[in-house]
Amino acid sequence: MRISQLSDRAGLPVGTVKFYLRTGLLHHGFATSATQALYDDTHLERLRLVRALLEVGRLSHADIQRVLNALGQAGDEPLDAIETFGRAAAPLIDGIDEEDLAAARSVTAELGWQISPDSPHLPDLARCLAALHSVGVAPSRERVRTYAEAASHVARHDLQAVADSDERSRPVEAVMGATLYDNFFSSLHRLAVENQVSRQRSRVPAPRVSVPSA
Amino acid sequence: MRISQLSDRAGLPVGTVKFYLRTGLLHHGFATSATQALYDDTHLERLRLVRALLEVGRLSHADIQRVLNALGQAGDEPLDAIETFGRAAAPLIDGIDEEDLAAARSVTAELGWQISPDSPHLPDLARCLAALHSVGVAPSRERVRTYAEAASHVARHDLQAVADSDERSRPVEAVMGATLYDNFFSSLHRLAVENQVSRQRSRVPAPRVSVPSA
Repeated sequence: MRISQLSDRAGLPVGTVKFYLRTGLLHHGFATSATQALYDDTHLERLRLVRALLEVGRLSHADIQRVLNALGQAGDEPLDAIETFGRAAAPLIDGIDEEDLAAARSVTAELGWQISPDSPHLPDLARCLAALHSVGVAPSRERVRTYAEAASHVARHDLQAVADSDERSRPVEAVMGATLYDNFFSSLHRLAVENQVSRQRSRVPAPRVSVPSA
Repeated sequence: MRISQLSDRAGLPVGTVKFYLRTGLLHHGFATSATQALYDDTHLERLRLVRALLEVGRLSHADIQRVLNALGQAGDEPLDAIETFGRAAAPLIDGIDEEDLAAARSVTAELGWQISPDSPHLPDLARCLAALHSVGVAPSRERVRTYAEAASHVARHDLQAVADSDERSRPVEAVMGATLYDNFFSSLHRLAVENQVSRQRSRVPAPRVSVPSA
């Protein structure tokens, strides 16, 4: 298909598609002249992936580039794919305080998790804990445990989904598990809060029990 | 304290503090002359909150403005505070397809959640589901349930944390529950995946059982 059809089907302006071609987020088409090229379904799939990561995952251009680079490197083996995209999607964070990192490591140690001391995911946890601490609402040990249980619960399912996927959809499944499924969780989290607030509100107030006078 | 001390203690350049003053993210200090003002702990607390929402929560300037406006409006009652900040922190999403919205509503209905049909959290879920669908890895019914269980698990704790907080820290607790605790979950989620990959890898391979020939 021509670039105009590709742009139509991906729901993106031609200018945006050209921008992705220039910056390498989209691979080049099959050139039919000096100014024209043809594109196929691999281009459409790639554009949909970029769009999802950008608009919903709110990943930066550089983050998407790292994730897409990993697409060419990840092995077929499910655990490899999960690890590769997990690392590629880890936010790049510089200048984390060593003390904050140590605090993050002790959180995962207390949970009994097998985490590499130089895991790319630790700086993110460290920064988050430091921010919560700075505004005076650091999580209690019990809250850490509650969140960790929930995270383990969905992580088990993420691994299973990648293992169960066929070879063709496996990379996308692994990429989404490392990116958009966090947004999926956030939106469900907000709705779960709304649900529970609404349930607590609609509870009929307990009838007043009059204390019999002695 | 002077603006230079405030900037030091908040870990932000003076120029940034001035920018927040100009744009209203920070309330004005007590003017001591035409060009000087004094600031107190309320300014420091506000700066730490803005910084956490901006740097870790990755909220936009406009989103932070909405959350801060809500700080002045939320009631003291825990459910009010949770609801107000939840609404303020909901991403503003325009132009969601009516069909996508209906799909999101049917997901929450199937979960048995009490969600207002015009909940500000539904467009986010709708967009996320549409994006996952567009790249060919829409969640199975079982995966939706797994994520919803995890979301409910942490939501229960979020409500409890706000209810248990004292009047002074309650608004910040509610703001963080609606914003940074999602980042906290994401970082734990990635670490939980790393933990499970690492556990599966370190498992001693099952010994080969030689099938006895008949």
